[in-house]
Amino acid sequence: MEKLLIALTFACSVLALLFALFTARKVLKFSEGTDLMKKISASICKGANAYLKRQYKIVVVFFAVLFVILGVMAFLGLLTPYVPFAFITGGFFSALSGFIGMKIATSSNARTANACREGLNKGLRVAFSAGSVMGFTVVGLGLLDISIWFFLLKFAFKLPNEAITSAMLTFGMGASSMALFARVGGGIFTKAADVGADLVGKVEAGIPEDDPRNPAVIADNVGDNVGDVAGMGADLYESYVGSVISACALGVAALHSITAMALPLILAAVGVICSILGTFLVRTKEGASQKQLLGALSRGTNFSAVLIAIISFPLVYFVLGKANWTVYFAILAGLISGVLIGQSTEYFTSDSYKPTRNLAATSETGTATIIIGGLSVGMLSTLIPIVIISVCILAAYFVSGGGTSASMGLYGIALAAVGMLSTLGITLATDAYGPVADNAGGIAEMAGLESSVRERTDALDSLGNTTAATGKGFAIGSAALTALALMASYIDKIKSIDGGAAKIANLNITNPTVLIGLFIGACLPFVFAALTMNSVGRAAQSVVKEVRRQFKEIAGLMDGKAEADYASCVDLCTKSSLHEMILPTVVAVIVPIIVGLILGCTGVVGMLAGATASGFLMAVFMSNSGGAWDNAKKYIESGVHGGKGSENHKAAVVGDTVGDPFKDTSGPSINILIKLLSMVSIVFAAVIVNYSLL
Amino acid sequence: MEKLLIALTFACSVLALLFALFTARKVLKFSEGTDLMKKISASICKGANAYLKRQYKIVVVFFAVLFVILGVMAFLGLLTPYVPFAFITGGFFSALSGFIGMKIATSSNARTANACREGLNKGLRVAFSAGSVMGFTVVGLGLLDISIWFFLLKFAFKLPNEAITSAMLTFGMGASSMALFARVGGGIFTKAADVGADLVGKVEAGIPEDDPRNPAVIADNVGDNVGDVAGMGADLYESYVGSVISACALGVAALHSITAMALPLILAAVGVICSILGTFLVRTKEGASQKQLLGALSRGTNFSAVLIAIISFPLVYFVLGKANWTVYFAILAGLISGVLIGQSTEYFTSDSYKPTRNLAATSETGTATIIIGGLSVGMLSTLIPIVIISVCILAAYFVSGGGTSASMGLYGIALAAVGMLSTLGITLATDAYGPVADNAGGIAEMAGLESSVRERTDALDSLGNTTAATGKGFAIGSAALTALALMASYIDKIKSIDGGAAKIANLNITNPTVLIGLFIGACLPFVFAALTMNSVGRAAQSVVKEVRRQFKEIAGLMDGKAEADYASCVDLCTKSSLHEMILPTVVAVIVPIIVGLILGCTGVVGMLAGATASGFLMAVFMSNSGGAWDNAKKYIESGVHGGKGSENHKAAVVGDTVGDPFKDTSGPSINILIKLLSMVSIVFAAVIVNYSLL
Repeated sequence: MEKLLIALTFACSVLALLFALFTARKVLKFSEGTDLMKKISASICKGANAYLKRQYKIVVVFFAVLFVILGVMAFLGLLTPYVPFAFITGGFFSALSGFIGMKIATSSNARTANACREGLNKGLRVAFSAGSVMGFTVVGLGLLDISIWFFLLKFAFKLPNEAITSAMLTFGMGASSMALFARVGGGIFTKAADVGADLVGKVEAGIPEDDPRNPAVIADNVGDNVGDVAGMGADLYESYVGSVISACALGVAALHSITAMALPLILAAVGVICSILGTFLVRTKEGASQKQLLGALSRGTNFSAVLIAIISFPLVYFVLGKANWTVYFAILAGLISGVLIGQSTEYFTSDSYKPTRNLAATSETGTATIIIGGLSVGMLSTLIPIVIISVCILAAYFVSGGGTSASMGLYGIALAAVGMLSTLGITLATDAYGPVADNAGGIAEMAGLESSVRERTDALDSLGNTTAATGKGFAIGSAALTALALMASYIDKIKSIDGGAAKIANLNITNPTVLIGLFIGACLPFVFAALTMNSVGRAAQSVVKEVRRQFKEIAGLMDGKAEADYASCVDLCTKSSLHEMILPTVVAVIVPIIVGLILGCTGVVGMLAGATASGFLMAVFMSNSGGAWDNAKKYIESGVHGGKGSENHKAAVVGDTVGDPFKDTSGPSINILIKLLSMVSIVFAAVIVNYSLL
Repeated sequence: MEKLLIALTFACSVLALLFALFTARKVLKFSEGTDLMKKISASICKGANAYLKRQYKIVVVFFAVLFVILGVMAFLGLLTPYVPFAFITGGFFSALSGFIGMKIATSSNARTANACREGLNKGLRVAFSAGSVMGFTVVGLGLLDISIWFFLLKFAFKLPNEAITSAMLTFGMGASSMALFARVGGGIFTKAADVGADLVGKVEAGIPEDDPRNPAVIADNVGDNVGDVAGMGADLYESYVGSVISACALGVAALHSITAMALPLILAAVGVICSILGTFLVRTKEGASQKQLLGALSRGTNFSAVLIAIISFPLVYFVLGKANWTVYFAILAGLISGVLIGQSTEYFTSDSYKPTRNLAATSETGTATIIIGGLSVGMLSTLIPIVIISVCILAAYFVSGGGTSASMGLYGIALAAVGMLSTLGITLATDAYGPVADNAGGIAEMAGLESSVRERTDALDSLGNTTAATGKGFAIGSAALTALALMASYIDKIKSIDGGAAKIANLNITNPTVLIGLFIGACLPFVFAALTMNSVGRAAQSVVKEVRRQFKEIAGLMDGKAEADYASCVDLCTKSSLHEMILPTVVAVIVPIIVGLILGCTGVVGMLAGATASGFLMAVFMSNSGGAWDNAKKYIESGVHGGKGSENHKAAVVGDTVGDPFKDTSGPSINILIKLLSMVSIVFAAVIVNYSLL
């Protein structure tokens, strides 16, 4: 059974990677267009490479330090000896996911722009293919890492199943820390460049977006790649692997059988096949409307989702047997919830609906009212997702038999997360193609291509905003479910340690250590959001000053007679974002250890619950406020409320600028934060049991 | 013993009320100044009265409906028959506190302005005396209500102690709902008027604050009275009464003796005396600097706090005896935490410290960066208060013997809240004098008094911002502690109902109903903040349009040749704020019942914990962001970063405008929300036990 399982997982991981490779080769066959386009694309690529290279240098130091710490702990018997290595591989594969995604994205932006010269359908195919490379790389590397470790631990080190899942959980910590670095660093880079470019270029100098005269324009496009692509790749690698492993661990704990561990792996493997099939449905006819474009993408993702929903029914029945087949409904609940949260995101942030349209109208009374309006749209938008996720948790828990066995219920919650992420290959493809289209638009503008090209890339880009909303639904929903599953795994882990069971006996919510843990945990997303926003603010201010300086000092820049010094802006963004990413990540790693040492294991559980609840809310709030401001601005640009250049538009641009760090730095980072907290807690569990104060 | 206790409480309530009366008469002896000043003050007074009259009309309907519902429930045996009446008196006294405070405030604004013509010291005395009337009215009415009901239930109806505290808890629901109406309605009024006046007057038309040409100027001053005074009075009445009663209830549950119930009452009674003594120390010499003024106020509050800290030591020892005297340290922890949270608030919001100064500097790069900066200052500022309150909870729990008896620990937490609020008489006085000074400044401006008068009222007003920070520390800190005490009371209440103990047995944080309750509870402050901000936004927009209309249509208004139609703005604010206050309050009352009916008692406990944690964070975040923006603007007005009228100043004004609903509507309302949720849950406990789904 184990061999078959490893073989299946390994085979599907190879399948995903081969599909990614095949798609990448297909993309690279397209032409990059004119020399100017090649040159621009090369500058973007160069900037992104330089950033990643320097980022990895810093990350390597962090990983080396933690490797030594974990090594010492393993030497002292507080950890199994595999943990330091699992930690490293998790980080490595997460970084690799981001790196490959970024590589293909920077290689496809000019190609997409060029393809758009021939037609919308061709542009869509190039951009979507680039997204697919990223999606299937993430999925493939995730399954590869899991199957290799599974193989090693089972057959080389001959561990029992409980010990296998327990060891594998820890490579989640490597993946999570890497993801947090990538998301925070990339998020700061992209938004510092974006805010800097917008504030001085659009607002002060009054030149259009992506205008080549803007010194921050290349940095802005580099940012799309290192933040929205590399950051997202590392992020979702971590979500994917985290949800699968925690489901395996909880399955073993609930049923003490290899079959329970097998189910999440099989689901993930089958999900790869469904996703690949789905990609073939993404195509559209020439001159397709916005709606038809969206239809093409939705057809692919919906097909994959329905397929996995159908296939997993016999699958669950076959794997778990008659006694436990009802966990199927937990998987279904996860799938449906992901879609519903995405739809709620779309409702609150798309300009086809009332909230964003009303928000656009508040610009009539000035900047302050559109800021207040956007904040309240975001806060209000937390209600529906929280109800959806609550119903999902309740349903997943009870259909899986949580009423009689709590551990079965928790297994159900973890499977809901796996269900939600099972078609990640294609959902990530529809998500990752957005930044490629965005870059393509930038290149079209800078290379002075005819306006019809820009119109086509804009159509693709705007579509990307909608699919990104769906993607965010999956990312946030799965983060919450996975965090809860990890919390349950943490409790199991503590119980498995000598003397741990007594220390975690009183998890009553009125126990003051639980309660205080809850308070502190709930505070972390606020502090984390503040730190990352401050970072963006500081980095953006330095960009603003640099751009202003160039406008002032480079003679003839505004008339297009002299070229801006793009490299200095890229360099500035790189330096400040890398400098700024360290503190938030270190905080996220250290706080759970400090809380554990002071409040003990019960305090840690409280902290995890508090951070998950408030983190989910803050992530939804910040993403949706940001999305609503962004689209309210675009809605005004479409000609209502005075249109482009009006006072109302200026107010909306301020809203959009405030929303930038909300939706692309702080919000998504919080998703990772809540999982990293659990991962760190799990890794340091033995330390806490042995040395905690309370 | 009981008789002595009731007599003492009653005597101190009468003492507080007499002191308030005596102080009021003293204030009313001062002259109101010139005819113009009288006229302006009369318009403000008229507007405030008209608002309150209409507000009470709506509130009466709400109370009547709930009275009938509670009556039916009592008839069905789900409640004791006293509850509907207790509910009504709680609401009545809360409303009365606000009304009296508002009356004295509107009668003292012109008197303060006039006193400032003679000197700063005289101005301070008038304004502070007006604040004292409010402070001691709140305290006096609170103790009066408690002692009357205690007397009735004990001697007229001869209930046992457990039943007395249980019945008295329910008049907290009346006080809380009234407080929420007052805070939300008043908060919307004041900020709609303020935002409207600022946006059109200051930003668009470029006329100074409180300029008589601004049509919203009277409405703005009315707002200070109905929001900052009447709203705050009702709010703190509720905090005070809620903390005392919940401590009584938990004391009876922990020690089953009248002495445990006596302690909070005696503490409150002694606190009245300490506060009165403290007020005599508030005076300053002529020409006092800002620092000396603050010193005068601090001397009063510090003296009262130290006095009660000293006196309560023998008091606790005498009342509870050798076995339990250590709860003294819980009281001390509460007192100290209140002061520390206030200092943290001051650090983050005063322009004497780095956060606000740095925030002012972000205005250099435009509106967007000052908005991002203010949001992150607020979010970051949650960390220290959460650590303080966590340490306070832990300390209060364990010094009171929570390690061996959980109910003693919870009694300790409740006593910490009582300790924090014991000197409310004087802390509220230093808080409530702010709006009086603010109004006085407005009158000085509108009546065209010499600029030295305005300088003096400005000095008083700016001082008010600092003391308000301390006041907020107490309000937020005590709200969190009281909410936790009420949560504990709720659990006791459920256990006392037939079949309740089994329903609340599993309060483990991993129980999905607890967890989902937690998620939903944590979401409520976000939704509530959104609703109230939206309300302010909508109301402000209508004011903006009306002010713009008047500027356009009333010929000669800008040249001072024609008078603005102040009444129409007041009327508009009244109408829209009363309309807008209904939904948030109804939501706060209905949600805990719905959650209870679906998720059962364990879900309610989860909801209360989640709402307390996230409500505390949101309240601190929103208050401090708002405060920091306000003071960053004032700091710029003092001449740095370009000073008044510069682009930077304009950016700061937008920040301040966004901060207005943050700090004066949504933030403070959340304090009440978290307690109202518990109160409603307690009142409907029997319904939930009998009819819940899960």
